[in-house]
Amino acid sequence: MEMMTPVNPPSRPLRHVLSSSQFDRAFLDYLYQLTTTIRRFDKSREGIVYLSSLLPHKRAMLYFTQPSTRTFLSFQSACHVLGINASEIRDAATSSERKGESVEDSLRTFSSYVDLIIMRSPIAGLCERVANMLDATPRPVPIVNAGSGPDEHPTQALLDIYTLTRSLRTEGGIDGKTVCMVGDLKRGRTVRSLARLLTNYDGVKIIFASPEGFRIEDDLRRDLMAAGMAFEETTDFLPAIEAADAVYMTRIQDEYDVPGMGGAEDYRRYHLKAEHLPLLKDHCVIMHPLPRRDELDVAIDQDPRAKYWRQERNGMWVRVAILTMLFGVNDKVQLPEL
Amino acid sequence: MEMMTPVNPPSRPLRHVLSSSQFDRAFLDYLYQLTTTIRRFDKSREGIVYLSSLLPHKRAMLYFTQPSTRTFLSFQSACHVLGINASEIRDAATSSERKGESVEDSLRTFSSYVDLIIMRSPIAGLCERVANMLDATPRPVPIVNAGSGPDEHPTQALLDIYTLTRSLRTEGGIDGKTVCMVGDLKRGRTVRSLARLLTNYDGVKIIFASPEGFRIEDDLRRDLMAAGMAFEETTDFLPAIEAADAVYMTRIQDEYDVPGMGGAEDYRRYHLKAEHLPLLKDHCVIMHPLPRRDELDVAIDQDPRAKYWRQERNGMWVRVAILTMLFGVNDKVQLPEL
Amino acid sequence: MEMMTPVNPPSRPLRHVLSSSQFDRAFLDYLYQLTTTIRRFDKSREGIVYLSSLLPHKRAMLYFTQPSTRTFLSFQSACHVLGINASEIRDAATSSERKGESVEDSLRTFSSYVDLIIMRSPIAGLCERVANMLDATPRPVPIVNAGSGPDEHPTQALLDIYTLTRSLRTEGGIDGKTVCMVGDLKRGRTVRSLARLLTNYDGVKIIFASPEGFRIEDDLRRDLMAAGMAFEETTDFLPAIEAADAVYMTRIQDEYDVPGMGGAEDYRRYHLKAEHLPLLKDHCVIMHPLPRRDELDVAIDQDPRAKYWRQERNGMWVRVAILTMLFGVNDKVQLPEL
Repeated sequence: MEMMTPVNPPSRPLRHVLSSSQFDRAFLDYLYQLTTTIRRFDKSREGIVYLSSLLPHKRAMLYFTQPSTRTFLSFQSACHVLGINASEIRDAATSSERKGESVEDSLRTFSSYVDLIIMRSPIAGLCERVANMLDATPRPVPIVNAGSGPDEHPTQALLDIYTLTRSLRTEGGIDGKTVCMVGDLKRGRTVRSLARLLTNYDGVKIIFASPEGFRIEDDLRRDLMAAGMAFEETTDFLPAIEAADAVYMTRIQDEYDVPGMGGAEDYRRYHLKAEHLPLLKDHCVIMHPLPRRDELDVAIDQDPRAKYWRQERNGMWVRVAILTMLFGVNDKVQLPEL
Repeated sequence: MEMMTPVNPPSRPLRHVLSSSQFDRAFLDYLYQLTTTIRRFDKSREGIVYLSSLLPHKRAMLYFTQPSTRTFLSFQSACHVLGINASEIRDAATSSERKGESVEDSLRTFSSYVDLIIMRSPIAGLCERVANMLDATPRPVPIVNAGSGPDEHPTQALLDIYTLTRSLRTEGGIDGKTVCMVGDLKRGRTVRSLARLLTNYDGVKIIFASPEGFRIEDDLRRDLMAAGMAFEETTDFLPAIEAADAVYMTRIQDEYDVPGMGGAEDYRRYHLKAEHLPLLKDHCVIMHPLPRRDELDVAIDQDPRAKYWRQERNGMWVRVAILTMLFGVNDKVQLPEL
Repeated sequence: MEMMTPVNPPSRPLRHVLSSSQFDRAFLDYLYQLTTTIRRFDKSREGIVYLSSLLPHKRAMLYFTQPSTRTFLSFQSACHVLGINASEIRDAATSSERKGESVEDSLRTFSSYVDLIIMRSPIAGLCERVANMLDATPRPVPIVNAGSGPDEHPTQALLDIYTLTRSLRTEGGIDGKTVCMVGDLKRGRTVRSLARLLTNYDGVKIIFASPEGFRIEDDLRRDLMAAGMAFEETTDFLPAIEAADAVYMTRIQDEYDVPGMGGAEDYRRYHLKAEHLPLLKDHCVIMHPLPRRDELDVAIDQDPRAKYWRQERNGMWVRVAILTMLFGVNDKVQLPEL
């Protein structure tokens, strides 16, 4: 049975969500509690209607110039849950940009109609630039980074932490656990963000299992060492997953296949198959940021340790929680109110 | 004056809408009554606001990978009528599918954010596959087939039946009537579904009027004979429409023009023109699933027997009725409640 | 301090918004008052929620077959403000049109699902045609022209007038003022509409400043003379802006560059730069319909006389006001009600 000490909300209001590095342990613990409470509201018609009464006076813009159906729908649904009206830009270039408008002017325009911008863009650092630009105007609005450039996808990292905490709640939470990350560790944005957030927990060990050519990059290696995080890198898949309290699978993007990185044969050694299930610990949490291809056997979906579908739905709830914090209505999400 | 005995709702809850073959006469009669009641709610601001209070706690996904502006808008508006928040996929391929995700995984993802999926797809049988797949998960959601493959478009057939029943209500309803279907009877999805649903009525006769190359297919012919339905096939347009209580016009898709099917000259003999109006019975119901081209003269729009524009709006109301049944709130649609 | 005599609403209900020529001074004064009141509602959660309770029983269609992200979002947000559910068409051609449907049939179809159509189209005169067509059916809906053909963009002109009136309220309003319009006066739709609306005010003078090849067209020149409007045309930028109570900058579309119109060098003489700010009157209103390129220096954004970002947000509020008038709920927007 889960027993958690109530956690206080952060003393500083949340203004933007730009990078996973902005979150500390106190924030993560509070977010876990808030998200769990919100999910309980979803159990009844009254609870759902109450959630949708929190922000009917707010409008959001989903500015997704880098396509991502999954993340888009997750955020859009989170808006709907709270009664927020959401507008969207899903074209790579808006008609104004085609007319020669700067991306800053475009986003300032959008900001003038809404109260929040959720943005996903291939341009690294654009979120910070826009947040700074708007903060200098008479009508700043919060910016949420929904994936930008090669590195940052902070809400994905938050939902991964939520799912880990939730799935390990009867095992004492994330502290002291071994997390095995598998696949393309070199380019995987989710792996990089999650590894960094895990430095907020005590006694965690990460095992990075990948082909030689897909090992983590130097910058991440350096950051983890600086944070005193225990980790090892291996090409040996089976011992790695056997030792793990959580296995975080990711897709190897073989469309990027280059010489010296090992061929398709090599990748296949990093696929999790139904035949591996007996090797895993009884409480092992199987995760995947999805979409998957062959690296995660669909037969595993039936195993109670498979949490990736819940992980996806958790993403919506974590985003709902983040939105309540950005608009300062998180204190209205308390169960006895119902 | 219309006098109808109240019909009880079906004893089994409606779980999915997959095929017109799942509906029997009792269902059709109940749906007629429910839709008619819903339309009365639309007459006042209070009624409209009441309808929108029925399902504000539900979210729907409109997954339209086969384009259809008309059907899309009809369903989207039906969602709006009931307060349902609707998300949409209108691209032929989602970004996840481009990343190699299976269509099953994509739809399971979408299902995790919403409470209902309305889908239109070029893939025959996809609706059934998805419904079965989701029914085996911990969080199944209803599937509504909004047109899939070459054969099924069940809600179109339901709205056609509604419009026929409504338009013939002072003539004793559909029983005993002669329905003339005109045009491309070989490939027309609406003709096939409507003809099948008409087997639920007593004493109905269908006249299929088309060029030789556009006659109905063997499978439909066989099914109608098995159901004991009276029908005839003819290439003689004028006698057919003269005998009809309802004329159901359809578009001949001459982009498919093939040798031996008759040329453009031939099609033109199956166009309904203003000069034909005097031939029709006084109560004859003129229908068309739209969009139309030359086969239905715009001058006919002014004739009181032309029901195709109402047919289109009826489509929205029938879909509203179906949605209330899928979520089990159809019993809340009762006029004295207002 | 602003002191305005209350203005009565127009005695005739507003049925469509098709052309800026349909508005007179009494309408413009009332619209100013209504919009200003609506903006005050936006100051509190209660006010915002009240606005969204005005039209939750209405559905709108945004039919934008000519792309315009900015105008689209402005209207969509205006719908959201009032609780109107908005559907959208943003493709150049709908799937029905690809199947050979006439644009009239397409729009009649859309009208059958909604209570209002807001349309932007490259086809000159389409709005009038559709409004007339629907007025002859049993279920007409209001049409709002959101930009059609080369000439009309009536709601842009209304928001320009609103911004001028608002920005000059401590200077006695628009009457007696000098407005300098700069840039592409030949093709600029906003310049043409605004100049025409200014004929409703007393003692206004317009200075048109542009390269020789971008002067206003004969038809506008003729209309202004017929209306007794004082105006002059000049190629001399600096004296023009020095004399102005308002400078209305527009983009010179050098993609249209043709021989004899002057080259890029020439355009640059019509760019407003930070170094020009000391030349302007203290109360001078700097406007631009946006998007901008080089003709309006971003450094000017910081100047308190720069009103173009407010102008943009005003656009949303003016559209909210117009929508309340089209649905006859403008009389419910009264501040003491709060």
